[in-house]
Amino acid sequence: MNVTVLCGGVGAARFLRGLLDVVEASTVTAVINTADDTVLHGLSISPDLDTITYTLAGATDDERGWGLAGETWNAMAALGRYAEVRPAGSGAAPTWFNLGDTDLATHFYRTARLTEGASLTEVTAEIAAAWDLGLRMLPVTDDRFRTLVTLGGDGDEAGSEVTFQDYFVRLRHGVPVTDVRFEHHDARPTDAVLAALHDADVVVIAPSNPIVSIGPLRALPGIDEALVARRESVVAISPIVGGAALKGPADRMLTELGVEPSVTGVAGLYAPVASALVVDTVDADHRDAVEAAGMRCVVTPTIMSEAGVGAELARTCLQFAR
Amino acid sequence: MNVTVLCGGVGAARFLRGLLDVVEASTVTAVINTADDTVLHGLSISPDLDTITYTLAGATDDERGWGLAGETWNAMAALGRYAEVRPAGSGAAPTWFNLGDTDLATHFYRTARLTEGASLTEVTAEIAAAWDLGLRMLPVTDDRFRTLVTLGGDGDEAGSEVTFQDYFVRLRHGVPVTDVRFEHHDARPTDAVLAALHDADVVVIAPSNPIVSIGPLRALPGIDEALVARRESVVAISPIVGGAALKGPADRMLTELGVEPSVTGVAGLYAPVASALVVDTVDADHRDAVEAAGMRCVVTPTIMSEAGVGAELARTCLQFAR
Repeated sequence: MNVTVLCGGVGAARFLRGLLDVVEASTVTAVINTADDTVLHGLSISPDLDTITYTLAGATDDERGWGLAGETWNAMAALGRYAEVRPAGSGAAPTWFNLGDTDLATHFYRTARLTEGASLTEVTAEIAAAWDLGLRMLPVTDDRFRTLVTLGGDGDEAGSEVTFQDYFVRLRHGVPVTDVRFEHHDARPTDAVLAALHDADVVVIAPSNPIVSIGPLRALPGIDEALVARRESVVAISPIVGGAALKGPADRMLTELGVEPSVTGVAGLYAPVASALVVDTVDADHRDAVEAAGMRCVVTPTIMSEAGVGAELARTCLQFAR
Repeated sequence: MNVTVLCGGVGAARFLRGLLDVVEASTVTAVINTADDTVLHGLSISPDLDTITYTLAGATDDERGWGLAGETWNAMAALGRYAEVRPAGSGAAPTWFNLGDTDLATHFYRTARLTEGASLTEVTAEIAAAWDLGLRMLPVTDDRFRTLVTLGGDGDEAGSEVTFQDYFVRLRHGVPVTDVRFEHHDARPTDAVLAALHDADVVVIAPSNPIVSIGPLRALPGIDEALVARRESVVAISPIVGGAALKGPADRMLTELGVEPSVTGVAGLYAPVASALVVDTVDADHRDAVEAAGMRCVVTPTIMSEAGVGAELARTCLQFAR
């Protein structure tokens, strides 16, 4: 049985970890968001790809909750000297995006290979091999593609459109959002991604932010069509539990964009492309509303900070294989 | 009195340190070689600019003899993982060029500013300000410009042309050289450099490698002409002491390229553009040969590892002011 998982970052990484406890890694394909990718200091940075790589490699600092275990931050500390002298208007030496010293090696390798003409798909496979990951990691596209967020509120930047990293990291997702769009020009999913969506026995939409993690994937031509064509064996996991996001700003963002921040709101977003929604036990009373939105509702523990929950969640999803 | 110094890396940095002991920093302009500059991991690296910056800032590790004090190497250590998986023929993840974690901040800033459209001259001034250096630091050109070395010997790469960093760092300058050339296409010195050569009361050619450090400067259009026009107030310091280079491969390289590895050989190279050569006391018996080559010969201690020698050497050079 082959499984394809549509992925953002942290939530998807945790789900994949559980999935790899119950199936052979070689049967798993992760299709990963690249619309948060950015270039800083000349380096090509792919946050979601790296979060998944490091998590599955068991290399993350679980106590701190982010970054690599044993990480140091000496390069960033030294950058402060330059942030003080940059001319007005310059975005050089951004110290708000913290890159650990050993994490830098990944960006160095990716940047050098892309400069040599390798595709992001090729580089990602090489990075996965370097960490001995057995699953197939596919960036959703090899093309340039990014999420742009329009800021609301009454701050200095209200009304302006910024990149996702500006919103998420620099502004610590503390500013309301009035719009999200994906700038993709001619970007298209790779053939490998479309084949993985077509060929898998089951497609799982990981518990990632439906707007800014799964949204960009669905904005690319052909992705929604591929899901619709096999909707009966597509299952989504709600990233909203008890009306709140486990991590990140998904709940606020849904509200700001006019979507109810609940599993029912999530069902409304996913009903066109998935036949079932997995919701946490705390949301059992939303079952009728989810089904009214057009999805089967599966109630099971989804909070993967407890051991075994990810594996059980994965088993639940595998039941939707055609 | 204004002083302009033509500079490579380490030898020039030590001379400048001595010079700044005896004159106001604001009267000093360093014109610095950029033909060893390279791009690694997407980062713009300027070894001679950084050696001078760090040395003058007192930030170098004098015990180790290179790099920043308190430096760590965690990014490079982590890069080894990727060097193992890169495809055959790929030059990604070069671990032979060791970049310290705090040193990286300088490359990050330079790269980001150049990407924003700043000139290398502007960025260099900003970096000098960040380190509170009072002198004016000028890259010799803002254009792309590099040293290429043809390898001799009987190794695998014999006969091939490589970049200076390949020769100097990757091959640890352990391979004979049969030719050196400067690929500069349309590169030209900046107006600031030409003005600094014209306006200074004295121009000093620092004790840097005459072939690969001072050579590239002289290969740019207008530099030799500017020196010839004021030859009487141009003084060079021999980097060769007792027939050997104090640091680096200058002695072997001179021999390989058919130049006698002695102060007399150096005099032959500099006589067209400088009226005097400062040689170390151990080379006092070369005085007649240097003068026969067409230069005044000044004998004085030049080995700057001892305190006070650099300052005294600077005073000697200032005597040639017009």
